[in-house]
Amino acid sequence: MLILMRPDAESGEVESVLTQLRERGIRPQVTRTEDATCILAPDASKALRADQIGAMAGVLKVVPISSPFKLASLDGALGRTVVEVNGVRIGGGDLALVGGPCGVESREQLFTVARYVADAGVKLLRAGAFKPRTSPYAFQGLGLEGLRLLAEARKEFGLGIVTEALDVETFDAVEETADMVQIGARNMQNFALLRRAGRCAKPVMLKRGPSATLEEWLYAAEYILGEGNRQVVLCERGIRTWSDHARNTLDLSVVPAAKALTHLPILVDPSHGTGRRDLVVPMARAAIAAGADGVLVETHCNPEKALSDGPQALLPSDFAQMVQQLEGIHRLLRQAKGALGGMALHGL
Amino acid sequence: MLILMRPDAESGEVESVLTQLRERGIRPQVTRTEDATCILAPDASKALRADQIGAMAGVLKVVPISSPFKLASLDGALGRTVVEVNGVRIGGGDLALVGGPCGVESREQLFTVARYVADAGVKLLRAGAFKPRTSPYAFQGLGLEGLRLLAEARKEFGLGIVTEALDVETFDAVEETADMVQIGARNMQNFALLRRAGRCAKPVMLKRGPSATLEEWLYAAEYILGEGNRQVVLCERGIRTWSDHARNTLDLSVVPAAKALTHLPILVDPSHGTGRRDLVVPMARAAIAAGADGVLVETHCNPEKALSDGPQALLPSDFAQMVQQLEGIHRLLRQAKGALGGMALHGL
Amino acid sequence: MLILMRPDAESGEVESVLTQLRERGIRPQVTRTEDATCILAPDASKALRADQIGAMAGVLKVVPISSPFKLASLDGALGRTVVEVNGVRIGGGDLALVGGPCGVESREQLFTVARYVADAGVKLLRAGAFKPRTSPYAFQGLGLEGLRLLAEARKEFGLGIVTEALDVETFDAVEETADMVQIGARNMQNFALLRRAGRCAKPVMLKRGPSATLEEWLYAAEYILGEGNRQVVLCERGIRTWSDHARNTLDLSVVPAAKALTHLPILVDPSHGTGRRDLVVPMARAAIAAGADGVLVETHCNPEKALSDGPQALLPSDFAQMVQQLEGIHRLLRQAKGALGGMALHGL
Amino acid sequence: MLILMRPDAESGEVESVLTQLRERGIRPQVTRTEDATCILAPDASKALRADQIGAMAGVLKVVPISSPFKLASLDGALGRTVVEVNGVRIGGGDLALVGGPCGVESREQLFTVARYVADAGVKLLRAGAFKPRTSPYAFQGLGLEGLRLLAEARKEFGLGIVTEALDVETFDAVEETADMVQIGARNMQNFALLRRAGRCAKPVMLKRGPSATLEEWLYAAEYILGEGNRQVVLCERGIRTWSDHARNTLDLSVVPAAKALTHLPILVDPSHGTGRRDLVVPMARAAIAAGADGVLVETHCNPEKALSDGPQALLPSDFAQMVQQLEGIHRLLRQAKGALGGMALHGL
Repeated sequence: MLILMRPDAESGEVESVLTQLRERGIRPQVTRTEDATCILAPDASKALRADQIGAMAGVLKVVPISSPFKLASLDGALGRTVVEVNGVRIGGGDLALVGGPCGVESREQLFTVARYVADAGVKLLRAGAFKPRTSPYAFQGLGLEGLRLLAEARKEFGLGIVTEALDVETFDAVEETADMVQIGARNMQNFALLRRAGRCAKPVMLKRGPSATLEEWLYAAEYILGEGNRQVVLCERGIRTWSDHARNTLDLSVVPAAKALTHLPILVDPSHGTGRRDLVVPMARAAIAAGADGVLVETHCNPEKALSDGPQALLPSDFAQMVQQLEGIHRLLRQAKGALGGMALHGL
Repeated sequence: MLILMRPDAESGEVESVLTQLRERGIRPQVTRTEDATCILAPDASKALRADQIGAMAGVLKVVPISSPFKLASLDGALGRTVVEVNGVRIGGGDLALVGGPCGVESREQLFTVARYVADAGVKLLRAGAFKPRTSPYAFQGLGLEGLRLLAEARKEFGLGIVTEALDVETFDAVEETADMVQIGARNMQNFALLRRAGRCAKPVMLKRGPSATLEEWLYAAEYILGEGNRQVVLCERGIRTWSDHARNTLDLSVVPAAKALTHLPILVDPSHGTGRRDLVVPMARAAIAAGADGVLVETHCNPEKALSDGPQALLPSDFAQMVQQLEGIHRLLRQAKGALGGMALHGL
Repeated sequence: MLILMRPDAESGEVESVLTQLRERGIRPQVTRTEDATCILAPDASKALRADQIGAMAGVLKVVPISSPFKLASLDGALGRTVVEVNGVRIGGGDLALVGGPCGVESREQLFTVARYVADAGVKLLRAGAFKPRTSPYAFQGLGLEGLRLLAEARKEFGLGIVTEALDVETFDAVEETADMVQIGARNMQNFALLRRAGRCAKPVMLKRGPSATLEEWLYAAEYILGEGNRQVVLCERGIRTWSDHARNTLDLSVVPAAKALTHLPILVDPSHGTGRRDLVVPMARAAIAAGADGVLVETHCNPEKALSDGPQALLPSDFAQMVQQLEGIHRLLRQAKGALGGMALHGL
Repeated sequence: MLILMRPDAESGEVESVLTQLRERGIRPQVTRTEDATCILAPDASKALRADQIGAMAGVLKVVPISSPFKLASLDGALGRTVVEVNGVRIGGGDLALVGGPCGVESREQLFTVARYVADAGVKLLRAGAFKPRTSPYAFQGLGLEGLRLLAEARKEFGLGIVTEALDVETFDAVEETADMVQIGARNMQNFALLRRAGRCAKPVMLKRGPSATLEEWLYAAEYILGEGNRQVVLCERGIRTWSDHARNTLDLSVVPAAKALTHLPILVDPSHGTGRRDLVVPMARAAIAAGADGVLVETHCNPEKALSDGPQALLPSDFAQMVQQLEGIHRLLRQAKGALGGMALHGL
């Protein structure tokens, strides 16, 4: 921790800070010039938080030094994490595609979508049995019945299931059915749920909260990792801004920025990330081009009758074309990476 | 629901929309001019959501008509809700003040703060036993031991206790100790927790999420109200924006805007709302001047040693002065309201 | 400037930074511990910018030390600036009120409004002759004819005129008529216009840009001050966020935050700041309670016929009541300040 | 214009609205059901603005029908605009690449960069002679001397010049030298400058303001188009949000969203859009994948010594690799478009 004192800090104020540090067994080093005093406190963060020191009289700014994410951090990691779900590798340079309807609505609906998702060569099916809804009057999902249908679909089509766990109460049931458990954006800081996910035997996909910084997102991942589950996948799904041409602002630069900080793989959800069907395919392409490990896309056989999020679901024919385009871009980036000698440059 | 078709919508597209409505027993009325067609669908929202119609071909825009908040809405309410906690009336023109440290840290710390809070004439004590923390490595609160200390403080100082319930698992314990249970900002859309709060026998204070619109906040209140608990208090605590002089942007205009939509009382938390001690008193005054029913302020006997949120906690002497200033402004607004014949104008 | 090197920075990288500094005559001091190296470079900012050093290999973070606002800064100022316009003191503990229609539309409209503004005891009239409009098809103001009407109104009602200068081309004409020249939010970083305002003989009111941080706003003021005009008044008018109950989010905590950094007085415009008539009076009260030196409020005799911004203009009767309420709050804060021994505490 | 009255609107309020319309020669059509009244007013927008009607008593909501952008709108356009600059087609399915330093600093610097930009096969050089700077103390550009150097570079390397016009005063000089004149983000609503650009004989590139919606951006383009200059190119350069891993949030979904509304071509500037060198190449790829007509990228031979924006400038070797990757993605999308029968689907 580096502590910069105000130019007009009194010597008593500097002493107070030094005392706080020494009381915790930290040996600070002080540098003084005419207009400033700064204190370098090695390993302070373990014993003392930056904002506690920042609250002291005479302190201008406190800058942490070491990464606060012990487990999620790329620094010190043995390598980048690859999460395998139903034979699909998320991370490690592969292209992971996940498709399906927003919610399970009926056996017929789920199976129709599952069939064309599988036909397009996609091996992971996403669909919610439990749906988080802003309004208590909106469709809340089929619940356990939805999970049963998902289990059937897995058997019938050989698809891996990605589905959301909304709360600790229903987590066991979701864990049993899912091949990867989703933690939704609204729950990114539901710490009880994160801890439960950390004790889950299945991989967990953690969506970014609508107003979460990259740092807060990695802290949320740290809650899961800290309980012992190392199979964590990040998923960017758009953030809340004032920009109003789309429901959310898909913050794609977080993909290379995350890869610079963490070893965890990262997917992008352009469906929730835009909320507009006509923006989904362009942004799915952009996500792969930016270096994402894959995308999660909503598709529905009959979006007009969808009980949730119809306006953003892709039509079947568009879905298949999108898959081809994404595979093309992925192949191209892989070749570029090969030509560059396999270096992890530029998000490749 | 009012449905505006695109100027170039084909007659088949108009027919499709009409069919969807009629299939649900809705009798639409159609108006046509040279450049537009619009459909008025009474009571459509119960059977059909605006975004489902919005997803149909040829539809330009869908405008809902009636309020989506059945229970939180001011329309149709018998009057404004007043929530009574430990003899303090929140709402109804009274001034409700809540003070205390961010978290319970020790018996000594809690009692020192409780004493001067009570001495300042404040009757409600806020302090967290369970703390939601961005980092898993930060102080997470004393838990059950914290609740025991709060119960002691209630007895000793005659203060009503406001404390946060973090999850369903520990809700029973919090409910037993608290006089008003707080649902924190990060949990504003934790629907399982909201439902549990709706079955709670104590009043519930619902903080606004850092990226929640007023509408989403009222929907969250609707989850609580829908389970039967009508003692709900809203609390604005700052939203996340790019404006960087304070930790959050305290969105004070939401106070009169909320009062125009809902009968629920509303408090303001200028401590989390700014994160800077020197901004707390001015913004507390501003909150009361804007028509808030009260404020929730952090104060700490020794902010430098606070285990959480020290930089924003008010010093004891400032706290007492603030109380006097707030009472002055409140009295003045009450007189202005009297002079205006008691009308609920201008947020008075 | 304080330069923190990455924990894994190589010694060559540290040397490079030191060389850059020494080449500019700066004598850096280096502190090293096991996990970090930091460099303290006195007065570096004059010769070298923080982001240039930040771009160098091995650098983790650069923290500037001294205030970048030489002229706007409170540090080193002789006292707080008071700007006098038509006998009204903006700053110095007085209450400055400015009222009027958004735009000058006709002699009749202007005079009707000017009369009741004056009747309410307000001495400054605001109205635009030149209007910045998002759409080229919207009413652009009466231009020179509008200025002539404003000059007439000044004579007739003894009101000081506050009106906007949109560009360098028409600045001379505005300067001649206005008692205080407004620089609008969209022009906050129109540097040619700022420089022209800096050579203006009249006081200048600088509105905050819709996405400007406090620091950028003070930099814009610095452009004006640097040309020699020291009569600068800041005006907060709402920022752009995703919060959608009002047109803008009035960022009131910027008032005490600005007063902590600069000696310039600050007004608040709750009309543009909310865009909703029913929020204007509560937020005007809140502004004064937060410590603003005054407010700028739109009022119109017939808002439905207003050629611009009708929805936010206050009705005449509301305007007069608002003035009384603001005077009451202002008096109360003055007394509180007196009781505290005249200290500039808590934004008083 | 579609006007929805409040459910509780009185008949007198409905009449008032109808009178306002009829007074302007508009023949409204009224539809009534039990819970709502709506009024369809053809062509109302020409005579009356939506917000004027919205300010009337009893009005719940006003929805405009026809596009407010007469000249920028895709509706009614004869086809998509292609702007040709130095033989490079911006729009029409081609890939337009623009590279260069942020500012012209010296002959040596400019020529070194221009040489490797040209060597990479790029035909357009960007560099500022006049620099808009937040601080008056930052490097403001070489001015006329910078323009002279740009003219030399054009001659020497056969590059087309893209450079910014900061104000009306220096516009003539910029117009003479530039092959395409840039209007910067801070000036997006500098209406005098937009009008001058509209009378310019050269193409104009209009950057999106840091807090401008897509609609406001197209209105700004409308100011230029309205003066007669139809050679307008849009450029997304990142918006201001709270997301803090990059300097701005590159809002890539605006690319397909803009293409759905306007016939104007659109470029993306990932350098200002992220402010971090390591994010530039991934986001440049993403921009092309999202369907942008090209990118504008900063590159500098020696970023550490750059007088502005060094941290985001790409190194020479990375620049050349980026060009190859972008060409690959562009080729691939072109083939996909061919396979789809040339349809303008999915932003292709």
